Order: sequence, then structure tokens, then C-alpha cells
Amino acid sequence: MANTFGKIFRLTTFGESHGKAIGGIIDGCPSGLDLNLSTIQKQLNRRRPGQSMITSQRNETDKLEVLSGIFNKKTTGAPIGFIIRNKNHKSQDYDYLKNTFRPSHADFTYEKKYGLRDYRGGGRSSARETACRIVGGSVAQQILSKFGVSIFAYVSQIGDVKLDKLYSEIDFSQIDSNIVRCPDNKCAKKMITLVNNIKKNQNTIGGEVFVVAKGVQIGLGEPIFNKLQADLAKAMLSINAVHAFKYGFEGVNISSSKGSEVNDIFTNIDGKTFTNFSGGIQGGISNGNDIYCSVAFKPVSTIMKKQESIDKQGRKIEINNIGRHDPCVVPRAVPIVESMMALTLVDHLLIKRTNRL
Amino acid sequence: MANTFGKIFRLTTFGESHGKAIGGIIDGCPSGLDLNLSTIQKQLNRRRPGQSMITSQRNETDKLEVLSGIFNKKTTGAPIGFIIRNKNHKSQDYDYLKNTFRPSHADFTYEKKYGLRDYRGGGRSSARETACRIVGGSVAQQILSKFGVSIFAYVSQIGDVKLDKLYSEIDFSQIDSNIVRCPDNKCAKKMITLVNNIKKNQNTIGGEVFVVAKGVQIGLGEPIFNKLQADLAKAMLSINAVHAFKYGFEGVNISSSKGSEVNDIFTNIDGKTFTNFSGGIQGGISNGNDIYCSVAFKPVSTIMKKQESIDKQGRKIEINNIGRHDPCVVPRAVPIVESMMALTLVDHLLIKRTNRL
Amino acid sequence: MANTFGKIFRLTTFGESHGKAIGGIIDGCPSGLDLNLSTIQKQLNRRRPGQSMITSQRNETDKLEVLSGIFNKKTTGAPIGFIIRNKNHKSQDYDYLKNTFRPSHADFTYEKKYGLRDYRGGGRSSARETACRIVGGSVAQQILSKFGVSIFAYVSQIGDVKLDKLYSEIDFSQIDSNIVRCPDNKCAKKMITLVNNIKKNQNTIGGEVFVVAKGVQIGLGEPIFNKLQADLAKAMLSINAVHAFKYGFEGVNISSSKGSEVNDIFTNIDGKTFTNFSGGIQGGISNGNDIYCSVAFKPVSTIMKKQESIDKQGRKIEINNIGRHDPCVVPRAVPIVESMMALTLVDHLLIKRTNRL
Amino acid sequence: MANTFGKIFRLTTFGESHGKAIGGIIDGCPSGLDLNLSTIQKQLNRRRPGQSMITSQRNETDKLEVLSGIFNKKTTGAPIGFIIRNKNHKSQDYDYLKNTFRPSHADFTYEKKYGLRDYRGGGRSSARETACRIVGGSVAQQILSKFGVSIFAYVSQIGDVKLDKLYSEIDFSQIDSNIVRCPDNKCAKKMITLVNNIKKNQNTIGGEVFVVAKGVQIGLGEPIFNKLQADLAKAMLSINAVHAFKYGFEGVNISSSKGSEVNDIFTNIDGKTFTNFSGGIQGGISNGNDIYCSVAFKPVSTIMKKQESIDKQGRKIEINNIGRHDPCVVPRAVPIVESMMALTLVDHLLIKRTNRL
Repeated sequence: MANTFGKIFRLTTFGESHGKAIGGIIDGCPSGLDLNLSTIQKQLNRRRPGQSMITSQRNETDKLEVLSGIFNKKTTGAPIGFIIRNKNHKSQDYDYLKNTFRPSHADFTYEKKYGLRDYRGGGRSSARETACRIVGGSVAQQILSKFGVSIFAYVSQIGDVKLDKLYSEIDFSQIDSNIVRCPDNKCAKKMITLVNNIKKNQNTIGGEVFVVAKGVQIGLGEPIFNKLQADLAKAMLSINAVHAFKYGFEGVNISSSKGSEVNDIFTNIDGKTFTNFSGGIQGGISNGNDIYCSVAFKPVSTIMKKQESIDKQGRKIEINNIGRHDPCVVPRAVPIVESMMALTLVDHLLIKRTNRL
Repeated sequence: MANTFGKIFRLTTFGESHGKAIGGIIDGCPSGLDLNLSTIQKQLNRRRPGQSMITSQRNETDKLEVLSGIFNKKTTGAPIGFIIRNKNHKSQDYDYLKNTFRPSHADFTYEKKYGLRDYRGGGRSSARETACRIVGGSVAQQILSKFGVSIFAYVSQIGDVKLDKLYSEIDFSQIDSNIVRCPDNKCAKKMITLVNNIKKNQNTIGGEVFVVAKGVQIGLGEPIFNKLQADLAKAMLSINAVHAFKYGFEGVNISSSKGSEVNDIFTNIDGKTFTNFSGGIQGGISNGNDIYCSVAFKPVSTIMKKQESIDKQGRKIEINNIGRHDPCVVPRAVPIVESMMALTLVDHLLIKRTNRL
Repeated sequence: MANTFGKIFRLTTFGESHGKAIGGIIDGCPSGLDLNLSTIQKQLNRRRPGQSMITSQRNETDKLEVLSGIFNKKTTGAPIGFIIRNKNHKSQDYDYLKNTFRPSHADFTYEKKYGLRDYRGGGRSSARETACRIVGGSVAQQILSKFGVSIFAYVSQIGDVKLDKLYSEIDFSQIDSNIVRCPDNKCAKKMITLVNNIKKNQNTIGGEVFVVAKGVQIGLGEPIFNKLQADLAKAMLSINAVHAFKYGFEGVNISSSKGSEVNDIFTNIDGKTFTNFSGGIQGGISNGNDIYCSVAFKPVSTIMKKQESIDKQGRKIEINNIGRHDPCVVPRAVPIVESMMALTLVDHLLIKRTNRL
Repeated sequence: MANTFGKIFRLTTFGESHGKAIGGIIDGCPSGLDLNLSTIQKQLNRRRPGQSMITSQRNETDKLEVLSGIFNKKTTGAPIGFIIRNKNHKSQDYDYLKNTFRPSHADFTYEKKYGLRDYRGGGRSSARETACRIVGGSVAQQILSKFGVSIFAYVSQIGDVKLDKLYSEIDFSQIDSNIVRCPDNKCAKKMITLVNNIKKNQNTIGGEVFVVAKGVQIGLGEPIFNKLQADLAKAMLSINAVHAFKYGFEGVNISSSKGSEVNDIFTNIDGKTFTNFSGGIQGGISNGNDIYCSVAFKPVSTIMKKQESIDKQGRKIEINNIGRHDPCVVPRAVPIVESMMALTLVDHLLIKRTNRL
């Protein structure tokens, strides 16, 4: 397994959905940061299950315990170890999975890859792991904010309900004003209605999260293979249920666009451009304009409806999921997407310091 | 810069568009492979400029010279060093770029990141570098073919002209039957007409490449951060001009789809499923079904039309590109996309051997 | 900081001497291993302080808590997270260090590198961190033993008292028969006398640990830069207080030896040689013979004697160490050296699987 | 194989002793360096065979060709690709090795590891590869010199002839004043006499190289596993024929020394100490004093005397080496040791920039 993200600022995570605890180590965190633990906890709370009617009802407080790397409230440059105890796992709910592979789940592939699996709640493949990314991502965001960077993510689409606004038209302070995290209350209402219907029908639905980083300095991103957009794509596609990524070209039909229509003309020597179709990245390197991308999530495969499947012996069976699940993960994914953006940017921010003599 | 791709099977590349040579090192290539150099050269020829009326007219033969790692026609496990001499570069064509930043190009970001740049033909940021990926990718494909894997890529869209077929309906042997590499002659004709028009108007246009890997064994992909789709996304987004990636869900409107509609039901214990919406990957790990994804390219930013821009002093100038450029890079990108797929898969194929006791 | 060891089998550690806990993550551990936790605890006990009259009297039980990666007593391929709570730290003992740099300690360099430091008990620079290496190393040893590898380390020298035997003359079952871990009771007695004298004089003394791995398969080690001896040297020199490493040439004055005298002649096609001056490694690759090396430790710099030093303002001061320290760390280093040998070998054992087609 | 050294400043090498060329890629070299190619060539000349009566008579000019990464004589931040053509290889001299394993050579281990080998001149295992390290090392030295660092290496021992001076007593300008590179002419004469005798007797002899880096800033080295001494040890042990490494404690019998005798007392707040037994490193981090270590080479295993060995079928044979070899490699190793020191330091110099907020 490869449970580490980043090259200089490195997050390594561990833990299963129904094990004793999940946790991680942040290595390469610069010294001298006044780390605000309650800011991290707030981000964890935005991701935790049980936060609203439309999320899984598993009741985890996701209380963070930091074990090292901080002294007199400052980071010391030593690795930051942390754990989050699992409290509300009902493993017996998953006994039926012992010999069963759920459709479109990781049950089959983990079993075949490793020869055995922890089937309780999906084990390591559970999105519960992403809580640890929130911890790493929030530390990254606190560093970035010292350098003037702020990151905003919001739900831009659920099912066919699409937010019809450019990000420049958005009031980011409204993101958390509703339970779907769509910063437009009209659109949010439609989304909530849709999710409630989906839930009632024991089904699931996908959607999109849009994320923008403002104030990023020029020069982040390492060509050739570690272009900023390449590392962002990897970051986002590593999130459970994400199946597509795109950056740049907001508000334009890129298929039918010609080069002359989507080239960004400079306004001045600081790299500011009249348009920002490039999404803040040119040649794999940030150019000082906003960096933005959208991340698409498929409907999660765990549905409450009955489904046909097979057991370990290859016999046809019928699955009736118990457990507690989300009809739509997109609202809880918002801080996760922010975190992956922050982890990617902070790593490149540090690497950039090595570019010149 | 980070000019290495892969963890075990590692390709490192070097070289500028107008330097003496480009080249690379393939490290971690298993020993005992009968390496067919003419197969590599054929792939290089599919990428090289000057191959048809709709590509750049720079006339490079892209003749591969392998310098090490092969003995008695077999790989020895030692690194494979190779070079390709640049022959037909006309650097004087780029003198006008010395003090100029082209819109949506890497000129500005390289200059700001490194404090100086090789402006001749884009220097290191030129897509000429991708020739080296072809070399690495072709070696990777030759390994994969020993394990039953075959990879097919083709142009599925140029501008608004879209191939209206599922990949299962495609005759892959027709991919190279026309100069746009769209394996449907009717659709290809429309694409060629479009590109010719674009060229005539001194403009550029984007498109999509679809790629599928057949015969991939179960178990490739390393959760959590190195999920197979995450590494594929990074691989594809590292290609010049790529701005979007998506895997799975071919032929379905994923936005409006519900979980129950896109879950893949198993047909048997080998992991084969009736549908393959998952694109051959579940939980970040290959499940034995076809792996497929689509890769979107923006219109290249170098256009022959006059454009407004700025010079190093921030003065407004007008740019009139000379040089030789592609009105649409997608046809030449086909072997590059294949190569990045192959490099990703072969790396995971080797890593997989370390998973079990 | 770089708190990770290994490429495929990777141990990452965290924790300070006087923080809440130390711990780590073992990533890349193959699935299917019946992990014996009490074997790990036994190794921890061999390293823990307070185990005898000649070690630090800090009383830590070093009780291991494993948090993930194990299911039904087997490793699952998921990362193994673990913690060891600090129980017996007396941080107030170290208040006097707040503004003081001890001679030949990490106080000064940490302060200068990071701009601040956790001075309590040496913080991250304390050898307390090596407990986590024992955990990783013991897991590694359990894997290696499935492949027929066994590792033995013992104290071969303390001060000028040197064990005058080749390792082939040693009865390894006697290593733990005395508190200095020298498997020769006569020699051990002299060593104990020496250490007791040193302790009485409030001083410290160095020594050597000899380690041998038996049953290692042919082919471990990756030329050019990751030669087996190079990775072993790095592993050993990363242990606190180690200042020298040498492999091969046991029992011979290598300075005055000629090539013809120390070449190892093959006895048969399996690679067994009449002599083993090469220490089981040729061209950076294991050759099937015993791998052995010796690791030299300097006298630890914390002495109970008064010493002159400086404070943060550069003023001359006199230091009078309190705290609890070892007069000679070599006996406790034995399981640490074993662990670093095991971590190095298991990593190469897994990498080796990727060498051939 | 792992043919890359370094994390940020990375040298990757390729090439066999009797292939077309050897070469490499330097990735992560900061932009803006005025690179002096003739300085690199001078270092190559210090390593090249045929330079004196006591080295191998293979006549290679080792002419460097740089292919990329330089523009207007400055590094651009792009990878520096380079090759050195092999000119004077007489591969037919090695036909007798096709089915033969030489004692204490890499023949056997390469064959077993990879299933086949390029036997001509030792193939990849030949020390010819170290020419590429000189190129990387010389670039590293040119960077370091901009930061006030200078590196000096010299031969301190051959066989039993030992230079009886501390490095502080040495006039470094005398290093190249004789063909053994021992900066004391009396001692050098004895060494030359010894090597000539060894050569006459068709044998080989080992020795030691001492290396010191002056002017290294405080703060290089990343605890825990990447301590500066650990990375130096790995660097040195990766050189062909090196079997031991030690740093610090020059001029003192460390075995019998007590802590109070070898602790370095600070003279001032800049970290300067009265003595420098720590070899410029404390807690794995440079402290601003000179960094020094000694590197021991075994007698090379290729001797001109007849030797007993086995062939591929395990039959006893007698070997009569032809080819051209060094009776003692230590004089030619001097620039290689310098290079490995430089590569290690420059990498840590760049990493250090990421330590603080």
C-alpha cells in the first residue's frame, strides 16, 4: 500500500473503519507554525458523519488527539503524530459481508489483491480514512494562509441539479449556510429535495465539488511529470468515489472553443490576465491567477436496495445492506477536496524554494 | 524539476526542443525482456512531427539511439539510456521570443520560476519531450504484452465532432487508417475537414483521446493515495495541453445516474461483471475488467493569428507567431496517451509483486 | 525531517522523549503474516530503559498498542499504526536545558535548524525514538524468518575490552545471558566491571555491536547507489551515537592484506565460498553467504560530570546534568542494530521480486 | 536497479564498461548557476584510467558531452543530460568471462539476480560508472562553492603505509603533486613504492581516503533516518570496493575514550568548538565546524595472478585475468569521494530550505 501523500510535506495515514483508531503522521511540516488545533477540529466536524439528516448516521465525534511535533503551541519541525479513536462502529452489522462481495465495492479487489480482508465497514477502503486527510489538509491550510493563500470549495452539482454561477459570482461565506454546502440557497434547496428523495428510495446519487485557491504565488508546480495540474488530479482522484477531474475553462464550451478564444491575455507584468481559462496554471506552473478545478463524484455503490451479487464461492446471492451510509457524499467531501488542494499546494510551496541558486 | 515518472519502473527524461538532443533513462526495467527496438521506433514515428498535412511541418526523424541496458538483445536489469538528436530545429525562428511572453504559454511561468529560460521553441516546456515518453512507454508496452495486456488509444473527439460509438464497437485495427487516428472513417473525414479549416484560419482546436487497456490482471493499484485511477490521472494530466480526465461510466449520463443503475453486478468469481461502469477499477485496484479513460486536450495556445501580449518590461506588444505548429495535437497525442497508460500499469504490475507474504 | 526508512517496506516514526506518546506506521508490510505481538514486546523489553543496573533508570514499560493493519491476527496489507505511551518522563528535570546547549548534543543544532526546540529530554533527538524502530524491525524479522533468515547481534567491544572470537565461534543463545549482551561470560564480566567504573566516575564509554544475518537468499541489493552495504551503512549510521560501520573482512588485517589473500574462492555453484571476507555481499548484492558487519558507538555525550558550555546568549555556563542516562548504550543497542538490519533486508527482499521479467 | 542518488538534487546514471556510452541526468539542479564545463572535465581527468603508471592502462579520454539544461552558459533548472562515449574498450579481452565467475566479483551475483549479465569488462558493475558521479559531483561542488563550501580529499593510507598527520596539518594544494594523491611527498614515495611492488607481483592492495568539507553552514541533515552522517555513509559505501566508513574522532583512540574526553566544548554562540571530535555533525545535523570522514577501500578483487574459480556449470576452473586493471584504486578514488561528499551536501543544502515556516 502507499499511504503517503506528498514529497516534502508528507501525510501518511493508517486505520480501518472499525479498528481501534485511525491516525497519521505529518512529516516535513516546517517549524515555527502556531498550530490552531480547534481549527483542525472544526474541519473534522464538517466531514464527520451524523452531522445532518442527509449524511450517514454513524455517530463519531472524531475527536483529534495530537501526540507529537508541537511544543509551546508551535510546530517544531518534528513529525506530528495524531490519532482519532473509533467510537461508534457497529461491526456486527458487517458480519454478513464476511463471505460476500458487494457490487462496485472494494470487497472483491482487496480480497484478491491481499488474499484476505478486514470486511468490517469496508476496512481500510472505507472513506473514514479521509478524516486523516482533513487533519493533514488543515495543517497545510494554516501554513498556506501565512503565505496569503485561501482555499474555498463548495458543491456545484448534485445529480442533475447544477449551480448555474461562475465562482466569481459566489459568496463563499454562504458555503456552510446549508447542509449540502452549495452557496446558493435556492439551488441548495433543490439539491436537498433531490437527496431526500434518493434516500427515501434507498439509492445514491453523485455530484461535483468546485474548488478554488486564491492568492497562490507564481512558480508552484514542477514540470515535466509533476506539473501542478497533474499532482492536483492525482490528489483528487485519490478521494473515494471521485471519477473525473478538470481544471480551467470555467463557463466556456471548451470542445468548440478555438485557441484564439481561450488564450489568456496578460494585463500586466505580474502575470494577471484578463481571462483565466488556464485555471491559474501554465506549463504546469502556477501563474499567480486563481487556481480552480472541479471534481466529480459517482453515486456511492453502497445502496440500501436489494442487489444481486456473488459470495466467495462464486454463488449468486442477494445483498441487503445494513450499516449506515450516505445517499450522497458530496456535501461531506467539501472539506476533503479543500484538504487535498491544500496538501498539494503546500508541498509545491516548499519544493519551490529549491528551484533557484 | 521532477523529470521522473514511476516508482519501480522509472522513466527520467531530459532535453529541450532546440538543444542538441533529448533523451532519458529507464531504470527498474526487469531483466530478460527481448526488446524490439523497431517497435519503439514505430511508436516514435506515430508521434513525430511532419507525419501528415495536419501536423507541424518540423521534419524530425526522431531516430532512437539506445546506449545501455541491452545485451544480446535482452534487457539486463541495468538502466536503459537513450538519446534522440534534434536535427531540424530552426532556433532563429524564436529570436522574437527572447523578450516576449506568449499568452497561455509556459514562457511567463518558466521565466518567473527559474529567473531565466531557454526560449528557443519553448525549451523544456515543448511537447517535444513527449518523444522520450514514447520510448519508455513502448518498453512498458512490450513488458505488458508478455503478461497479456494490450492498450489501444484513439481520437474520440475533435472540436464538436464526436465519435458516437462505444469502445466495444470499435475496430482497433482501423486506428491508424487515417491521419486523425479516429477508427471510424466517416467521423475521421469530418474531423480532418474541421482541422483543415482551423489551420486555414490560423487557429487551433482541442479534442479527446480515449484509451483502453485489455487483459490487465486483478490487483494493480495501491490504496490509499496511489489508487490506480489517481496515478492514471496524474499520468494523463502531465501531458502537455491535457486539462481533464475521466474514467469509467462510458455511455451513461453519470450526473443523473443512481447507484442502483451504475453498480456493476458480478457474472462470476473471476470478477467479470455484466457492465463495466467502474472502468475496471474498484477501491483503487484493477478488477480484471477493461480499464478505460478519456483524456481531454485544450486547443494549443500557439496560434498563427496575431495576438496581443506583453514583453519582459511589461509593455504591450503584438505577437505574430512564426515557427511550425499543430492546429490540433490530438492525433499525435494518441501514442503518448498509450505510453502514459503503459508506464502507469507496468509500474503497478511490478509493485503488486510485493503485496503478499 | 525525514522520518521514514525504506522504499517498499517503510517505517515512519514520530514522538518525543517527553511527549504524550511515541509511535509509527509500518507501510508496505505484505499481507498474510501471522504477526506475533508478544515477540515484538520481548524485543522492546530488550531495549527499554531500567532493565538493569547499568542502564538509565527511567522506568518505561514501553507497552505497545497496535491500532490497525491486523485482522484475525494476520497482517492485511494495510498500514500498521502503533503507539507507545510515555509514562515515566520527568520533564521538570530538564528545565535547566531551556536556555542551555549541552556539549556534543543535538541541542544547538536543532535550535539553529528549526529556530526552536523541545528541550525536554532531548525531544525528538532522544534515542527514545529507537523503540519505534524495534517495532518495525521485529515485524521485519518475523517476515524474514518465514524466508529462512535469522539475525543475531551482540556486543563485541566496550571501551578497550574486546571479545576475541570470530562470530562463527559464538553460541548465540548466550547473548542475553548477561546484562551487557556479550555472549562470552568471561569477557562480559570485564565489560560489566568497566561500565560500573565508568558509571561511578559519572562518565560514559563507547563500544561495538557485531551483527550477522544467516540464510539470506542470493540477490538482495540494488546497484548502483542502493548497494546492500550502502543501505546497511545508512541504516546503522542513523542510530544515535553510531560513528563507524564496516562490513566483511572479519579476523583479518585488511590494511595489509593483498587481493589474492582476501578473495573468496567458490566451493560450489550455489555461491558458497571457502572464506567469507566479502561479508556476504559482492557488487552490492547478497551472494548467499552470511552477511555481517560491525557498528561502532561513541561514548554518549550526556555525562554526569560537570561540564563547561554556553547558553543561548553565548555566555559561558557550567552544566550539571540531572536526568537519567546510560553510562554505556551498547547493550541496549543490540536489538536496535538487529532491527535496522532486518528493516534493510526485508525491504530489499521485496524489491528483489521486481528484478526479472 | 536503483541508479539515482539524492532526493532534490538527483543524479541518475546509466552505462556499461563496454557499451556505447555511459552518462546520466542531473535533475533538480537550481537555475542560475554559471556552470564551468572545463572544471568538470578536469575532475574527470583526475579519475580517468591511463593517467599514470600505477593505474589501469585503458586509454579513455572521458570527454564529456552535455546535451541539455544549460542556456547561455547558465543552468536553467531543466535536467542536465550528459554522455561520455566509450572509446578504448577491448571487449574481446573478456570473452573468457562469458561462462566464468571471478572470485569476489559481481559476476556471480549479477548472473543470479538478473538471470543474465553483460560480462564485458564487468558491465554495469564496473567502476567505470563512477565517471558519471564525477560529473554530478562537480556540478554539486560548483553550487556548494557559491555558498562558501570547499571539499578536499586525499589518500591517507595505502596498505600499511599511513599518513601520520591530522588534516589540519595538511597543505591541500599538494594533493595532486604526486600520482598517489597523498599530500606529503615522503609518505607518497613510500606508497608509490608499495603499489609498484604490488603491481609487479600481479596483486592488489587497499587503502583509505580522507575527506573534509569546510565552510558548511549550520543545519544540514534531516533527523531521524536521514542524518547527515547516515547519508554520507550510504554515499561512500555505494562506491565500488569501499568496505568501511567512519566520521569524527580524528587523532584519538575512540575505543578507550570517555565521554568527558571527547565532548566538544563551545567557544562561542556560532557553534565553533575547541575540539571537533563530532566531525562537524551533532544529532545528525551539521554544526558549522568542518565535516570530515574516512573511507576504506579493500584491495580490488581483479588480480593478474592465476586464481581458482568455477564456471557456470559449477566446474572448477583456473582464471588468468587479462584486461587492464588497477593495482590500487585509491588514488583514482579521491575525486569520487569528493563527488559523493558534494552530492550529499548539496542535496541537504536544498532540503534545508524547507525546514522553517
